[in-house]
Amino acid sequence: MTNKDARTPASAQTSDEVSADGEAGKSIGWHKAYVEGTRSDLRVPVRQVHLTNGRSVTLYDTSGPYTDPLVETDVRRGLPPLRENWVIARGDTEEYAGRPVRPEDDGIKHTSPRGGLRNLDAVFPGRPRLPRRGRDGQAVTQLAYARRGEITPEMEYVAIRENVEPEVVREEIAAGRAVLPANVNHPEIEPMIIGKRFLVKVNANIGNSAVTSSIEEEVEKMTWATRWGATRSWTCPPAATSTPPASGCCATPPVPIGTVPLYQALEKVDGRAEELTWEIYKDTVIEQAEQGVDYMTVHAGVRLPYVPLTANRKTGIVSRGGSIMAAWCLAHHKESFLYENFEELCEILAAYDVTYSLGDGLRPGSIADANDEAQFAELRTLGELNRIAKRFHVQTMIEGPGHVPMHKIKENIDLQQEICDEAPFYTLGPLTTDVAPAYDHITSGIGAAMIAWWGTAMLCYVTPKEHLGLPNRDDVKTGVITYKIAAHAADLAKGHPGAQEWDDALSDARFEFRWEDQFNLALDPDTAREFHDETLPAEPAKTAHFCSMCGPKFCSMKISHDIRREHGGSRAEVEEGMAQKSKEFAAAGNRVYLPIAD
Amino acid sequence: MTNKDARTPASAQTSDEVSADGEAGKSIGWHKAYVEGTRSDLRVPVRQVHLTNGRSVTLYDTSGPYTDPLVETDVRRGLPPLRENWVIARGDTEEYAGRPVRPEDDGIKHTSPRGGLRNLDAVFPGRPRLPRRGRDGQAVTQLAYARRGEITPEMEYVAIRENVEPEVVREEIAAGRAVLPANVNHPEIEPMIIGKRFLVKVNANIGNSAVTSSIEEEVEKMTWATRWGATRSWTCPPAATSTPPASGCCATPPVPIGTVPLYQALEKVDGRAEELTWEIYKDTVIEQAEQGVDYMTVHAGVRLPYVPLTANRKTGIVSRGGSIMAAWCLAHHKESFLYENFEELCEILAAYDVTYSLGDGLRPGSIADANDEAQFAELRTLGELNRIAKRFHVQTMIEGPGHVPMHKIKENIDLQQEICDEAPFYTLGPLTTDVAPAYDHITSGIGAAMIAWWGTAMLCYVTPKEHLGLPNRDDVKTGVITYKIAAHAADLAKGHPGAQEWDDALSDARFEFRWEDQFNLALDPDTAREFHDETLPAEPAKTAHFCSMCGPKFCSMKISHDIRREHGGSRAEVEEGMAQKSKEFAAAGNRVYLPIAD
Repeated sequence: MTNKDARTPASAQTSDEVSADGEAGKSIGWHKAYVEGTRSDLRVPVRQVHLTNGRSVTLYDTSGPYTDPLVETDVRRGLPPLRENWVIARGDTEEYAGRPVRPEDDGIKHTSPRGGLRNLDAVFPGRPRLPRRGRDGQAVTQLAYARRGEITPEMEYVAIRENVEPEVVREEIAAGRAVLPANVNHPEIEPMIIGKRFLVKVNANIGNSAVTSSIEEEVEKMTWATRWGATRSWTCPPAATSTPPASGCCATPPVPIGTVPLYQALEKVDGRAEELTWEIYKDTVIEQAEQGVDYMTVHAGVRLPYVPLTANRKTGIVSRGGSIMAAWCLAHHKESFLYENFEELCEILAAYDVTYSLGDGLRPGSIADANDEAQFAELRTLGELNRIAKRFHVQTMIEGPGHVPMHKIKENIDLQQEICDEAPFYTLGPLTTDVAPAYDHITSGIGAAMIAWWGTAMLCYVTPKEHLGLPNRDDVKTGVITYKIAAHAADLAKGHPGAQEWDDALSDARFEFRWEDQFNLALDPDTAREFHDETLPAEPAKTAHFCSMCGPKFCSMKISHDIRREHGGSRAEVEEGMAQKSKEFAAAGNRVYLPIAD
Repeated sequence: MTNKDARTPASAQTSDEVSADGEAGKSIGWHKAYVEGTRSDLRVPVRQVHLTNGRSVTLYDTSGPYTDPLVETDVRRGLPPLRENWVIARGDTEEYAGRPVRPEDDGIKHTSPRGGLRNLDAVFPGRPRLPRRGRDGQAVTQLAYARRGEITPEMEYVAIRENVEPEVVREEIAAGRAVLPANVNHPEIEPMIIGKRFLVKVNANIGNSAVTSSIEEEVEKMTWATRWGATRSWTCPPAATSTPPASGCCATPPVPIGTVPLYQALEKVDGRAEELTWEIYKDTVIEQAEQGVDYMTVHAGVRLPYVPLTANRKTGIVSRGGSIMAAWCLAHHKESFLYENFEELCEILAAYDVTYSLGDGLRPGSIADANDEAQFAELRTLGELNRIAKRFHVQTMIEGPGHVPMHKIKENIDLQQEICDEAPFYTLGPLTTDVAPAYDHITSGIGAAMIAWWGTAMLCYVTPKEHLGLPNRDDVKTGVITYKIAAHAADLAKGHPGAQEWDDALSDARFEFRWEDQFNLALDPDTAREFHDETLPAEPAKTAHFCSMCGPKFCSMKISHDIRREHGGSRAEVEEGMAQKSKEFAAAGNRVYLPIAD
């Protein structure tokens, strides 16, 4: 179904309209639909849930073409380059030969612990595509367009997704309060926006590790993560292989892709931090920018004088990028090459419209280290770097902690917003206690919900395996769903337009015992259905006016219905009737109601 | 080990002392220890975790004698009546014949849907014990003692558990800001205290259902819940059987037991709410008080005039007790018999030292209904009832919501504290969104952590099965652990003395790669170990200075250690050395450090 007239709401919209392929009163689950913008190639996907009462609810959809039965997808092939014409039509970018592939791109050793980890061409038979970059002197970023007062198709796209006017999107980007990460080399992207005036986004870290896991497994996990609602995906391979799933030549996700170029650069010097150079780093950034990475984490705030500030910490430096840069600084007794060459880096990122994610290399790794001098010293530098990036029209967001007890969370967002001119805050958790390894999705989901309510624009998920091991598919799902809960709870608390309609639709279904609708509206329909069926598996239980918890007789909701039935008809009638009784009652003491049976 | 001299701290205490049965440097896990008070029969259990570095950490222990290898326990037998002598010695209670058992005690039908659900004598071969109650005119409650300035052994016990002076406990109880629920007929209890100045407590609802599950299964779950840290257990059988695991005659838990007498009373009239009478209810309360129930949920705040206020709600009345009372009020067009007979009820509860848990029968069941007129009207009545209860020296806490979005949570606790003279607040969640059935332990864990930080004294857990089905053992564990996280996060945020020592001990172990210590200190050691082993199962990995996430080379913590090693010896030396360097650096610009290799 394509709905040409209606804007989809930010989070949820209920509608009386029965979809073309749906029948009122029959459970047909949900399907993927599109909302068209002002041009025919601008179609925004939505998840349309069909209720058994004939209504439908429209939800934000992150799952990409994978969930569209009309689009043939293969994890080994790229997605259609929907956005290519928009980029070309602007006429300010050009194709070029691109940086030649070099042997060290895969790391000095060429082989990984498990062998051949990065034989990308064999794994992903892609089509060749020349990289693209801004023509000399052209400011090609979404920030540059926004500042010039121009609404790009990307901005219109996210406006439809968020149910706001395109002008709001443009304004927020122009002010630096929001970013729309979309590398000109990532045409497969379904644009999304990150900023406190918009829906809170969730980032899923996916990436293979030096010890275990393959690229195919990780791409599978990424697709899985977007299925469950990850709005961003961060390919974050910690060690042996660090190349992002490159645009065109391998499985490109429909969501923005972020990397930490430092990891791949480190491979190129066989893991010896002190051998890193600005030239190697810069070359890696260009390599990844050509491959379509939408945003890069850059730990340029880890400055030499801050390293000693971590000496009396309980857990030192826990950011991998932070520790690498600290090691480099100390080994050479020099200021960070990222900090010193930051302006040149801005020029490179600007040419591809890569967004900065200024990393918090000195974030606290324990409750004891939260909000300390090292952390806030780095934050002040990130504020300085944010202003430099903006001079180059580079979109910028700021990364945040980490491990922070609840009473110290608000200071983080307040200070970040002040120091960084309201640039979008992007936080990991924070974890609100250290005592629950294996449950850090929960320790951090608590902090994530709170900090998002107070203004954080994007949350980096944490899985149950945090601190313990590599997440598997189930862990990724648990992490994503926990963080979708945190994000949506924050959307509700911020009063985001449309956010509560989703809750209301589910609550209505619950009160009216429409079990199938409850399942279909749930963040995780499969598990909700499975849990229900565990106790009451039979099909009639799906329409029963009770559940296994209270049994048929003592269900409070059933009693509520009985009360309404006995004291009026429709909800409105009951309300009126009971209000009237209430007035009589108040007017005449406690004995106004005449006993029925007497 | 019995430590006669040291008070155990509230949450955690690290000590250099190597325990009698432990060897420094060897992983020996943990064991149950006792801290003795001023009398030899006052021994407070603690969980002592032995670290591989020779230190130990002492944690609050809720698991009861079940985890003491020296105590023979059987789920079908009662626990030793540790507290019996304290009660007898006070001389203000007396044994009496007790209320005769009546056929309707098990419900009119005598049989449950699955048959024989409540053949307690067959399931639990117990020893006979006469019930006990206050002698005429004697005020036997902990509140009465506290008001008279007397510190009971129960108060001393909880003071040791909470690491505060006994006088603090007495003061808080006397002021009504804390309750120490301990029925004179529950001598097996390990006393605990509920109040905002103390550790946040967690309540686990356990109870069999009309549709499925047996008493044995539920008692098993209860033991399981206390193993994982439930500080309270609420036997809350919704329908067919409602009798608590009675003291002496069946498996009595070491934690306080709460019930909703209304449920059993309703059975006695075969589930017909309108046939309930004050006499039947009162008789049930006496029956359960004789059996040792420590606190009872009483929905006396659901008054007739409030019922119409629920008519325009999205989800009506969702409290079972609330809906039963509402149905009764409307059927008779009379004020609630609980409200009208509240003073007589106070007299009964006072005689056994049963604590009130004034139920929130009109709590919101959806985000849409949060903080509405119905909810707050009832809260004002609970404030009124709280003052009445205090006149009778009945300890009282107040129950709270429910479903509340984050931005409306604080109003709940602030209003409750104001209206109810700071009586302990005891909340269910609150759930911060409705859209995630199957994950409501998480939607509610977020709200629980926040409201506990702001002053809620006890949290009622929610399991993943909430809204969907009956929790099994795993669900109970997940619910308890999620809520222990919320409670501890709140303890940290409140700055509870000793709370952070636990986090610090675990963070130290993490930074020093003491994997076994991390597992043993974890809230759930089994799962933490299992998750770690999933990726790196071999024994050497337990001492490895890296984990599967980063691999051996790029571990940030390892790099932190390298930095410290290269730039000093001990942590203090590194700090001093680096601080000196930092000063030099600041004094001479950015090039102070001389390159090592040059």
